[in-house]
Amino acid sequence: MIVITESQMTAQSRSEMMGLIEEYGFKAKQSPDLGQDVTALYGKGNKAVAERLRSLPDVKRVTAGKPYTLADREYQRRNTVIRIGGLTIGSDSLAVIAGPGRVRSYEHLSAIASWMKRCGAQILRGEFVVGAEEGMDIDGLRMMKEVAQQYGLTTLTTVPGPRQVEQCAAYADILAVGVRNMQNRDLHNELGDLSHAVLLRRGLSATYADMLNAADYILQRGNPNVILLERGIRTYEPYTDSTLDIAAVPALQTLSHLPVFVDATHSAARGEMVVPLARAAVAAGASGVFLGFDLGDPDSSRLALAPEPFAELMRDFSTLAPVAGGQFLHGGDAEERTTIETK
Amino acid sequence: MIVITESQMTAQSRSEMMGLIEEYGFKAKQSPDLGQDVTALYGKGNKAVAERLRSLPDVKRVTAGKPYTLADREYQRRNTVIRIGGLTIGSDSLAVIAGPGRVRSYEHLSAIASWMKRCGAQILRGEFVVGAEEGMDIDGLRMMKEVAQQYGLTTLTTVPGPRQVEQCAAYADILAVGVRNMQNRDLHNELGDLSHAVLLRRGLSATYADMLNAADYILQRGNPNVILLERGIRTYEPYTDSTLDIAAVPALQTLSHLPVFVDATHSAARGEMVVPLARAAVAAGASGVFLGFDLGDPDSSRLALAPEPFAELMRDFSTLAPVAGGQFLHGGDAEERTTIETK
Amino acid sequence: MIVITESQMTAQSRSEMMGLIEEYGFKAKQSPDLGQDVTALYGKGNKAVAERLRSLPDVKRVTAGKPYTLADREYQRRNTVIRIGGLTIGSDSLAVIAGPGRVRSYEHLSAIASWMKRCGAQILRGEFVVGAEEGMDIDGLRMMKEVAQQYGLTTLTTVPGPRQVEQCAAYADILAVGVRNMQNRDLHNELGDLSHAVLLRRGLSATYADMLNAADYILQRGNPNVILLERGIRTYEPYTDSTLDIAAVPALQTLSHLPVFVDATHSAARGEMVVPLARAAVAAGASGVFLGFDLGDPDSSRLALAPEPFAELMRDFSTLAPVAGGQFLHGGDAEERTTIETK
Amino acid sequence: MIVITESQMTAQSRSEMMGLIEEYGFKAKQSPDLGQDVTALYGKGNKAVAERLRSLPDVKRVTAGKPYTLADREYQRRNTVIRIGGLTIGSDSLAVIAGPGRVRSYEHLSAIASWMKRCGAQILRGEFVVGAEEGMDIDGLRMMKEVAQQYGLTTLTTVPGPRQVEQCAAYADILAVGVRNMQNRDLHNELGDLSHAVLLRRGLSATYADMLNAADYILQRGNPNVILLERGIRTYEPYTDSTLDIAAVPALQTLSHLPVFVDATHSAARGEMVVPLARAAVAAGASGVFLGFDLGDPDSSRLALAPEPFAELMRDFSTLAPVAGGQFLHGGDAEERTTIETK
Repeated sequence: MIVITESQMTAQSRSEMMGLIEEYGFKAKQSPDLGQDVTALYGKGNKAVAERLRSLPDVKRVTAGKPYTLADREYQRRNTVIRIGGLTIGSDSLAVIAGPGRVRSYEHLSAIASWMKRCGAQILRGEFVVGAEEGMDIDGLRMMKEVAQQYGLTTLTTVPGPRQVEQCAAYADILAVGVRNMQNRDLHNELGDLSHAVLLRRGLSATYADMLNAADYILQRGNPNVILLERGIRTYEPYTDSTLDIAAVPALQTLSHLPVFVDATHSAARGEMVVPLARAAVAAGASGVFLGFDLGDPDSSRLALAPEPFAELMRDFSTLAPVAGGQFLHGGDAEERTTIETK
Repeated sequence: MIVITESQMTAQSRSEMMGLIEEYGFKAKQSPDLGQDVTALYGKGNKAVAERLRSLPDVKRVTAGKPYTLADREYQRRNTVIRIGGLTIGSDSLAVIAGPGRVRSYEHLSAIASWMKRCGAQILRGEFVVGAEEGMDIDGLRMMKEVAQQYGLTTLTTVPGPRQVEQCAAYADILAVGVRNMQNRDLHNELGDLSHAVLLRRGLSATYADMLNAADYILQRGNPNVILLERGIRTYEPYTDSTLDIAAVPALQTLSHLPVFVDATHSAARGEMVVPLARAAVAAGASGVFLGFDLGDPDSSRLALAPEPFAELMRDFSTLAPVAGGQFLHGGDAEERTTIETK
Repeated sequence: MIVITESQMTAQSRSEMMGLIEEYGFKAKQSPDLGQDVTALYGKGNKAVAERLRSLPDVKRVTAGKPYTLADREYQRRNTVIRIGGLTIGSDSLAVIAGPGRVRSYEHLSAIASWMKRCGAQILRGEFVVGAEEGMDIDGLRMMKEVAQQYGLTTLTTVPGPRQVEQCAAYADILAVGVRNMQNRDLHNELGDLSHAVLLRRGLSATYADMLNAADYILQRGNPNVILLERGIRTYEPYTDSTLDIAAVPALQTLSHLPVFVDATHSAARGEMVVPLARAAVAAGASGVFLGFDLGDPDSSRLALAPEPFAELMRDFSTLAPVAGGQFLHGGDAEERTTIETK
Repeated sequence: MIVITESQMTAQSRSEMMGLIEEYGFKAKQSPDLGQDVTALYGKGNKAVAERLRSLPDVKRVTAGKPYTLADREYQRRNTVIRIGGLTIGSDSLAVIAGPGRVRSYEHLSAIASWMKRCGAQILRGEFVVGAEEGMDIDGLRMMKEVAQQYGLTTLTTVPGPRQVEQCAAYADILAVGVRNMQNRDLHNELGDLSHAVLLRRGLSATYADMLNAADYILQRGNPNVILLERGIRTYEPYTDSTLDIAAVPALQTLSHLPVFVDATHSAARGEMVVPLARAAVAAGASGVFLGFDLGDPDSSRLALAPEPFAELMRDFSTLAPVAGGQFLHGGDAEERTTIETK
C-alpha cells in the first residue's frame, strides 16, 4: 500500500497517520525522493487501514493491490544507485559481470581477471565448488577476493542457501541469489540484514510482480542495494532451455527504481547466441550484463566466451551503451586516455 | 529430407538418385549454393527412400527428421537476399517497415511517407480497412502505392486471406501473412505461386520449426522470397500481451538462410517499450524492423511512434546496425552525403 | 456489449433502444431465455453507445469489455442443446465421437461403425485424405455417410478450409474446425451461414476468451449450433506435445452456454494416456469426448484405441457420466434393456 | 545411470562392477524388485564409467541421460507403497488430504476432523500460522496431532524451510514441500534423513523430469517415502492462476514408481472448479487428492469446500475410484459395514 500525502502535511496529521498505520499492524517508510510526500506500508497488517487513511486530512491518495511497495517506482521515483568501491551501478555506467563457472587455479583466475580489466569489465564472478556441487570452497572464495583486489575488480558469488550467507559475504561484494532461490524467504531475510549488493535472479516462471515482491522482502529488512537480473523464462519453445525476455528491461525500469541486469549466457541455448543477446541487452538499456567468460581452451564451459570475442563484445558495448543513454569505457580506450591524461 | 552427395557425382548416379526420389513420391531441388552437392526432398513421399538413397554410390549423407528442408540452412548455406527495386533485404542493409494502422487521407499518408524518406525508412506499410475490419479497401491500397511511388518507397500490406491475394498483389510489393494465418495452407499456396516478397509473421505459439515448416510450403511452390518475422509469443507473463523472443533472431539465422525481421510495436505492451525493443532487435542482428509510426496526434494509435522519436530511433539504427555487421543510412546523413558528393 | 433491461420494458423504450443501437452501428439480438430482458450487441459499432444506453429508461445495466457476447452465459443462461436426428448434444447425455484417422475400405469402416454402435458411441468421425494431406476425398465422405446411415450414427469431418465447406456439409452432420483454423474468419463466415453443428477446436495458444470470440463470429452469422473442443494447449512441458487443460471444462461451462467437449486422443502423448484423460474428461463434466479408434492392427495409428479397450472405456463412461450429472448408455446395457423391455 | 545385469551374474562380476562404480565416484543401489538385476548409480561421479561397465561380463545394458535414477520406473518396476499406521498410500486405496488453511480453535478443528472421518477422508492437513505467515505455531501443530489422534486421522503439514523440519516432524506424519521449495536442496537433505512420508509439490514451471530429479535427492539420502503432487503449472491462460496438468497423473505413473496425488483446490481458479477437478483427478487414477475443506462459514477461505459438498464429493470418489482400479470407502458405507460385520 502506498500513501500519497500533501507536501505541506502538518506534523499532527503525519503523527495521526503513523499512529493508524501502526495500529493496523503495518510498518511504514517514507520515500527518499525529495518532497517526502510518499509513504509505503509493508509487513503484515489489516488492509482495512486503507479506508481510514483515505479519510485523513492531507492524504491525497492511497493505492493498494500490488504485491510490492518499497520496490515500486511509485514509491521511489529516482533510480536506485549502488556504490561499491569505485564502481557505480544503476547510474549511466554499464556494469559487466564475467568469469568462469569453475576456477581451476590462481593463475587461471589471474589470467581471466587481467583480461577483464584490460577490456573494461568490472565484476569478477566466482562460482567455486567443492566435492558436491552444492558446497562452496572457502579457499576458492579467498582466491577470488585476492585476484580481484590485485586487479581492482569487484567480486560476485552465488549464495547456495541461507546457511552460507555469512561465509560468502566475507569474500564477495555482490551476493547473487540463484534462480531456484528467488522466493526463498529465509535467504531474503539473511540478505536483507546485510548491506552487500544483492543480485536477484528471476525464477523460471516468475512474473515481474513476483520478482519485485521478492525484492521487497530484502528491502523491507533494510538493505536497499538490490539488483534485478533477467535470465530467461520457461516457454513452449523447445530449441532453447529458456526464452530471454528482453522486454523485462524496459518493463522493470518502468515498474521499479532498481537496476536491471541481463544474463546473456544462461539464457542462450548455444554459444553463437551469447553475443547477439548481450548486444540486445545493452541496446535495450540494461544497467549491467552477466557473461560466462573463460580462456577458450577445452576445459572452458560450452557457453563461455573466449578472450578475443569477449574483447570485441566489450568494444561493441562502448558503442551500444551511449545509444541507450549510458556509457561503457572499454579498457583499451581507458588506457589510451590514461596515457594521454598522464602526459 | 536432405541428401549430401559427392561434388564429383557422376551423371549416372545423379540420374539414378533422381529416379528413386520420384519413384518414392518426392520432389527434389538442388541447392543454389556453389558446388551443388545438396539436394532437398519435399512434398509427400515414402520415407523408406532414405535407406535406398544411403546405399547409392556418391551419396555421402542423408538427413531426415526436420519438418522443413528448403528453408534449412543445411540446404542453402548462403543467405537469401531479396531485391525489390533498389531495396535489398537480407544482405547487410537494415530494412525499416513503418506506417500507420489506419490511413486517414492522402495528405496524412504523404506526410508520413515524406518523414520516413527523410529518416531513411524504406518500406511503407498500409493496413487499409473498409467497413468491417476484415476487408481491404482497394482505394486505400491504390493510395499507398501512389504515395510510395512519389517518395521512392517500397509497399507492404497484410493479406487478409487467400481470396484477397490477387488484389493485394496488385498494389503491394511485400505481402504480409497475419499471425493467425501463419499455418493457413491455402494462403501459402496462393503466395507461393507469386514472386512477391512474403513477410511471414510468427504465430503466437509457433516454434521455430513450425515457422520454418510454414515457410517451406511457400518455397515449395516456387517463391523463394520469404522473410521471417518475430513478433512475440504467448507466455505466462501478464504484464505484456506477448513476450518478444529476441533469441529468435540468432536462432533462426542459424537454422535458416531466410532474412529475419522483428516487430517492435506489436510485441510491446506500452509505448515506452517500443524504442528499447527496436534497438535490441537491431543490435541482435535483425535484417529488418517493423514499426508502427503515425503523426503523434490524438488519432494515432497508442503504440505508434511520433515523428520526433521515430527520427531519433532511425539515427540510433545508424549507430547500432554496424555493431551487428550491417548498416543503416539515416536520411539526414544520406542528404548530407549527397550534398557533399554532388559538389 | 450486453444490455440488461427491465422485464416490463415498454415498447417505446425498446424501440428507442433498438434505434440507438442501429444508429451506433451495432446489431442486436435478444436472449432466448425466458423473460427476454437481455440484449446482446455485436458487429462493428461505436462503443460510445454504452453511455447513451445507460441513460435510457428501463435499462438496468450495460456490460462491456468482453470479446464475445452471443456466446456469453450472461446473454443466455440456459445451456445450448443441439439436436441432430435422434442425438442430443449439450443436454445430460454424453456424446462420443470416434473413428480412425484414415479410412482404408468400406469393410474397415463398417467394422468400426458396428463396434461403436455396440458400445454406445454415437458419432462416426472420418478424416478422409486424398493424395496430399490437405485434400478431402468425396468418395471417402460418401462412404462415411453410407456406413453411418447403416448403423444409425451421426457423422463428423474436419473442414480443411472455407472452399471445402460445401462439399463437407453434403456428407457430414457435424463440421469440425481444425486447431490452426480456430481464428479463420472466412471459415467462420461460411460455417455461420449453415445450420450444421460446428465443433470448434481450441487453438494451441488460444485463451478461453479467444475461443469464445471465435464462436461468436459463427453465432453472429445465425448458426447457434457451436460446440467447444478442448484439445490441449502449448506449455513448457516437453514430455507431451500439448497439455490437456481439464479446467477448461468447468471454466467454459461457467463462461458460456455452449457444450464443451474434450479430445482425449490428440492431447495424449502416448497410448497409455488416452484412457485416463478420457475418464478425467467425463468425470469433469464434459458433454462429449473425441477418441481415435481403430481396429488395433498394425495399420492403426499409434494413439487410436483398439476395440477391447474402447469397449471397456465406454463401460467406464456409463459409470462416470452420472457422477457429473449426465448419463451414457453403453450399447451392451442398451441391448440388455431392449431385450428386457421387449419381453 | 542404470545398469541392467544378468540375473545369474556371478559374485565376482558383481564385485568387479561395484568396484568400478566406487572407483568412478558413484554410489550404487540395487533395485528392490525381485530378481535384483537392476542397479542405479547416483551421486557425483565420472560418467566415463558407462563405457567401462558396458564391457563387463554379465552386464546387459547401461542407460544414461535422465536426471533421476532411484525415482525411475526402470529402476523399480513395482509401485512404492507407503504405510503410515493403518493408512496405505500408493496401493489401490485412494487417500484424501483435507483441512482448513488456518485453524481457529480446537473446537473448529475437531468439527472438521469429525466430518472428515465420517466421510472417509484420512489425512488432516494443518497449516498453522503465527504472527507472520512464514512461521509455524507449535501449539497449532500440537492441536492438529491431538485432534487427529482422537479421530484416528493421519497428519500433514507444509514445512516452511530446512530449519523447521525437526519441529514439524514431531507432530506431522507427512511433511509437505511447498511449491517454491521444490528444488531446495537443503530441505531435500533434511527430509531425506527422516523416514516420514514427504509430499513433494510440483514447482510452477517444473517439468516431470525436474520433479523426479528433486524426488531423487530425497531418495538418495535414504528416505523412500516420497509422494508426488501435481498442483497446476504456469501457462498463458489468464482466467486461472495455474493450469492443472491432469496428464501428469498417467505420465508420472509411467515414468516413476512413486505415488501421484493431485491438489484440486490450489489449481482451481474459482470455487465451482474444485469439484470437477477433484473428480477428474480420481478418474485419471491419482492415488490421492488434496482438498481445502472448512466449515463453510464466512471465515472459511474462498476455495475451501463446505461440509455438504465435501460429503457428496467423497461419495463420488467411492464411485469413481473403482473405475481407475482403486477404491475409496466412504465413511457412511464403512459405518454401515462395521455395523453389519459386528452383528
